[in-house]
Amino acid sequence: MINIAIVGVGTVGCSVAKILEENRDLLNARAGKELKIVKGVVKNLSKKRDTNIPLTDDIDEVLNDDSIDIIVELMGGVEEPYSVVKKALEKGKAVVTANKALLAYHRYDIQNIAGDLPIGYEASVAGGIPIINALKVGLSANKIMAIKGIINGTCNYMLTKMIDEGVEFDTILKEAQELGYAEADPTFDIGGFDAAHKLLILASIAYGIDAKPEDILIEGIEDINQDDISFAKEFGYSIKLLAISKKIDENIELRVHPVLIKNDQMIAKIDGVMNGISVIGDFVGETLYYGPGAGGDATASAVVSDIVEIVRAGKSSPMLGFKKPFKSENLKLLPTEEIESKYYLRMSVKDEKGVLGKLAQTLGDSNISIDTFLQKPINHDEAMLLFSTHTCLEKEIKVAIKEIEDFDFVKTKVSMIRIEE
Amino acid sequence: MINIAIVGVGTVGCSVAKILEENRDLLNARAGKELKIVKGVVKNLSKKRDTNIPLTDDIDEVLNDDSIDIIVELMGGVEEPYSVVKKALEKGKAVVTANKALLAYHRYDIQNIAGDLPIGYEASVAGGIPIINALKVGLSANKIMAIKGIINGTCNYMLTKMIDEGVEFDTILKEAQELGYAEADPTFDIGGFDAAHKLLILASIAYGIDAKPEDILIEGIEDINQDDISFAKEFGYSIKLLAISKKIDENIELRVHPVLIKNDQMIAKIDGVMNGISVIGDFVGETLYYGPGAGGDATASAVVSDIVEIVRAGKSSPMLGFKKPFKSENLKLLPTEEIESKYYLRMSVKDEKGVLGKLAQTLGDSNISIDTFLQKPINHDEAMLLFSTHTCLEKEIKVAIKEIEDFDFVKTKVSMIRIEE
Repeated sequence: MINIAIVGVGTVGCSVAKILEENRDLLNARAGKELKIVKGVVKNLSKKRDTNIPLTDDIDEVLNDDSIDIIVELMGGVEEPYSVVKKALEKGKAVVTANKALLAYHRYDIQNIAGDLPIGYEASVAGGIPIINALKVGLSANKIMAIKGIINGTCNYMLTKMIDEGVEFDTILKEAQELGYAEADPTFDIGGFDAAHKLLILASIAYGIDAKPEDILIEGIEDINQDDISFAKEFGYSIKLLAISKKIDENIELRVHPVLIKNDQMIAKIDGVMNGISVIGDFVGETLYYGPGAGGDATASAVVSDIVEIVRAGKSSPMLGFKKPFKSENLKLLPTEEIESKYYLRMSVKDEKGVLGKLAQTLGDSNISIDTFLQKPINHDEAMLLFSTHTCLEKEIKVAIKEIEDFDFVKTKVSMIRIEE
Repeated sequence: MINIAIVGVGTVGCSVAKILEENRDLLNARAGKELKIVKGVVKNLSKKRDTNIPLTDDIDEVLNDDSIDIIVELMGGVEEPYSVVKKALEKGKAVVTANKALLAYHRYDIQNIAGDLPIGYEASVAGGIPIINALKVGLSANKIMAIKGIINGTCNYMLTKMIDEGVEFDTILKEAQELGYAEADPTFDIGGFDAAHKLLILASIAYGIDAKPEDILIEGIEDINQDDISFAKEFGYSIKLLAISKKIDENIELRVHPVLIKNDQMIAKIDGVMNGISVIGDFVGETLYYGPGAGGDATASAVVSDIVEIVRAGKSSPMLGFKKPFKSENLKLLPTEEIESKYYLRMSVKDEKGVLGKLAQTLGDSNISIDTFLQKPINHDEAMLLFSTHTCLEKEIKVAIKEIEDFDFVKTKVSMIRIEE
């Protein structure tokens, strides 16, 4: 018998209990032991919950209970769950967590404290898709050359809707909030922060690299509009919020931002609330993982699968997949300005003589050449210019954008989206 | 230091050696120990090979060498590799194999002999895609309701080409053989047998069910022609060779055959030599895994990843994922005749009065109703009839087909493809 305590009994916690109940015989056969939730820890005992787990509001009751083998942390937040996980490990308990924010900040601390104790965190990235396991075990033969992930369902739902239905951002956001696909305060999702947390976890498994959210480029989807989408459609692109990691020589790029990406790429075919992660390994080439990135049952599927493996395998491999520090390569984070990309720019300009010439000159001065170009009239004396560039450096496009915005004939901020090849 | 011997040093074996060499530092960090190939066993020592592994033609030399920790079996065949794997396990060595035919027949024997010794077989299904690991570990919380796999690259390449280029089967087969995508004797691939071997392995992890290739429905893609493809295009279908497992109550369906499948399904979007497997779990819903299903480097990626995990984790979970026999459900293989499906039928008929009426009558007598219908003239007195049915039982359609073929006005064998919803 394996005794489990769940700390934080919300939607996911209730689903975990439901799976252990409904699939009891199967899990028992797979794990080799009976799995039992003996206690749930909650903040508010009086809140109604859809479960019959015995509840307490005293975390020490489970931390000090030596009969409890596994702590499942589903609290949310960063420092409070960190303290719980730390104490659980110090008491010799295995830990399963779905908490990406916790891991974005404390994954190396937790790995160090854990030692040989198993930590499961499959649910922390892309919900029900076993991407942690794929990257840590299934692809471990490879240098990971690139990861491109659609790992925020809210953004993917909204972008898909904007593309399919031609509706603007604010309208879709309201609809997503009503459907429960977006939070009342949606910043964490649509600003790219949620995806960034997940990317950092994946990057540690891929490269053994430690980075915090504040170290990397994070941009959201707030500024995308139907002009961008019409340009994308015209030239065979989809628009996605991608979490990207790339290894170029000794440099690691980590970034989250919207991209234009060609429709024929597998990752561009992942629509709606679904998640997908493309991983390129130096020997395996591209593999891609697709599935539900959120939802109580899908997330709980990952949590329970972690529990089964912890019980079944007896001993787990080190949390982030490296048994020894990986020192032979001197990997370092590439500064944002050094990123190479193609870019798409949108601006509205006064429709007067010489505008195109001056823009082309400005771009040329920064070594940037134009790839495709679309001009649409806005009214009798204004036009919308939409164009894409050939590859250049981020610092070059930034300088060019600043100079373009200084022209009198440019009426708006220049909107920029990176083009992912 | 972990000493490894490779038995069968062909394309995959040479790639394994190349990965261990090129990614030495990374693998050392991930596994925690240096991984070294100390010996390769080959049949013919005089054959030129692209590797500097020390070779022998004496298998006993590695089986009796106590310093060898892991045997990598890449021989091909069934009984000969079984004997090698058996002896290796009896000597206390861990085993990694890429051999799906071996596992299609002896996976339970090997699991029984292995006891606590780790067996890696990620490479046996879908090459570089870590589907074994996903099913065994990442989805272990779930009852597996369905698996739909494109797990034979040869067939998928040929069908994609037939659809994209409008060329008939024989022409594409010749081209595939020239490109090395199909064997000189292609029966094993295009007849569905290769996919069936892989399906049986997946089914054991999903359900703990033991079955042999001869127990299940296996049909190939030999009879598909451009008439079928034009019907598919007309009604929004793609044509794929699918390996299918479904759990319906206590019944397990296992079958390999071509299907018509709607273009908007993710699995229908997997084209060319690529593989993809869609898995539906009762809690997680659909997840899908995509990548290269063959090729030396991709297959070797899976082999080496298995080696890393065996060394890193110390102890592995049981080979097929069940720590104890799963007795609580009395799962049994559904006989082929009891399969429920929609069907597509093609036949050429004499273009005379009353033909449609007689066909409709025959189908109606078997409780089968027509869903869509297409008639194309072949010449002045013959026509091609293409139609799809609503759901019926396999035994009902078989009776109907037999009766239809008995009509004088039916000029050819009736060609049938199942429609996957």
